[in-house]
Amino acid sequence: MKENKYDQEVFFQKYSGMLRSQMGLAGAGEWRELQKLLPDFAGKRVLDLGCGYGWHCRYALEQGAASVLGTDLSEKMLEQARARNSGDGIIYRRAAMEDLDFPAGSFDVALSSLAFHYVRDFTPLAENIFCWLTDGGAFVFSVEHPVFTAQGSQEWFYGENGEIMHFPVDNYYIEGVRDAVFLGERVKKYHRTLTTYLDTLLRSGFRLERVVEPPPPEDMLDLPGMRDELRRPMMLLVSARKISD
Amino acid sequence: MKENKYDQEVFFQKYSGMLRSQMGLAGAGEWRELQKLLPDFAGKRVLDLGCGYGWHCRYALEQGAASVLGTDLSEKMLEQARARNSGDGIIYRRAAMEDLDFPAGSFDVALSSLAFHYVRDFTPLAENIFCWLTDGGAFVFSVEHPVFTAQGSQEWFYGENGEIMHFPVDNYYIEGVRDAVFLGERVKKYHRTLTTYLDTLLRSGFRLERVVEPPPPEDMLDLPGMRDELRRPMMLLVSARKISD
Repeated sequence: MKENKYDQEVFFQKYSGMLRSQMGLAGAGEWRELQKLLPDFAGKRVLDLGCGYGWHCRYALEQGAASVLGTDLSEKMLEQARARNSGDGIIYRRAAMEDLDFPAGSFDVALSSLAFHYVRDFTPLAENIFCWLTDGGAFVFSVEHPVFTAQGSQEWFYGENGEIMHFPVDNYYIEGVRDAVFLGERVKKYHRTLTTYLDTLLRSGFRLERVVEPPPPEDMLDLPGMRDELRRPMMLLVSARKISD
Repeated sequence: MKENKYDQEVFFQKYSGMLRSQMGLAGAGEWRELQKLLPDFAGKRVLDLGCGYGWHCRYALEQGAASVLGTDLSEKMLEQARARNSGDGIIYRRAAMEDLDFPAGSFDVALSSLAFHYVRDFTPLAENIFCWLTDGGAFVFSVEHPVFTAQGSQEWFYGENGEIMHFPVDNYYIEGVRDAVFLGERVKKYHRTLTTYLDTLLRSGFRLERVVEPPPPEDMLDLPGMRDELRRPMMLLVSARKISD
């Protein structure tokens, strides 16, 4: 059974309080960098895997997408998506992304924001997405950075006086499940190496277009804890394209 | 002035004692993975930046390269290269790679093994290499992994009883010089992010072909300290190609 932490009341309440839940894209530190990686949406059929509140779905529609399918495992997320980010052409569907099945060439754009680290196996998913895309189709996603997921706790290493010493990396090559702490709750996440993300895409036939580790935005550096985010990479943004040679 | 640690007697003596200096490619843990990323050398003009003892130069020649130019800043390295890895078609030249200048399209293959982390600016170098390569030309290199170079000491974080706790990452987004300890000596190295390596290549016009973080080889795991190398990524291998669309 795939873990569905977001449908647990306490966790979901905490997630709902996050800036990115309250404010949408403007509250997500990585959004401005991710936005630069996005393709032209005009007339495109878009798939958003792990759509959460649906902010990216509505953005794609506003940018001219012909249709948007947002999928998520969490019913609570989809309730929020339907309430906050509905639109003519957006469909929200409850599903684990590992279970999805579409005819080849069903989409022009595949998106996923901070969801793949909940999925155990990346390779079959990447191969499916390659198949679901049309030739020339774009695949853009963000994930937690392998540096951030490797050791598991996702917490800084502190000195005797409670000061941050550094960020710990461990078991980097040991891929698989980690018991992370997120919003004070235990959450299962899957660590995989950078090689597994990038080399899998290349070997699946994708052409990489951009690889970006977004630093905290200059104008957010004075938010609590944000300056420390210069000390470790927390996210990885990738854009790729299906181009048959 | 570019630092040339390898021409300092004590450091060079220590480097000479390393397995990779004594045994060449067979003594380098990453060689078998790097080898998979190399192109067909038959009839090719090859440039090796920071060639060291010249092991890769001789390998390229043995694989059928038409000519090989190995460059290094260290005279001691080049003495070793000439003594151990000479061959008809190999030329060794003393130069800092930042100072090299060739006509466009001078080479079919550019190689570099564990040398770029001694260079301050990667972007102009990547742009030069793009220019020096013919269309379709291959660029394959290894560098110390950004996780390994970020904090600077390149040393594990130890617990009270001297046991390895984890590997420390710090100042990841603060690129630039680090005072590393290598073979017990202080050496200047340059940290840069993964973004700077990969995204610079993509934006310079290269197409990425492979991105690999080589884990320690199975049959070397019983060498001293090798099993711990499953806990952190130490190297990054990249192959790219200049392909005009």
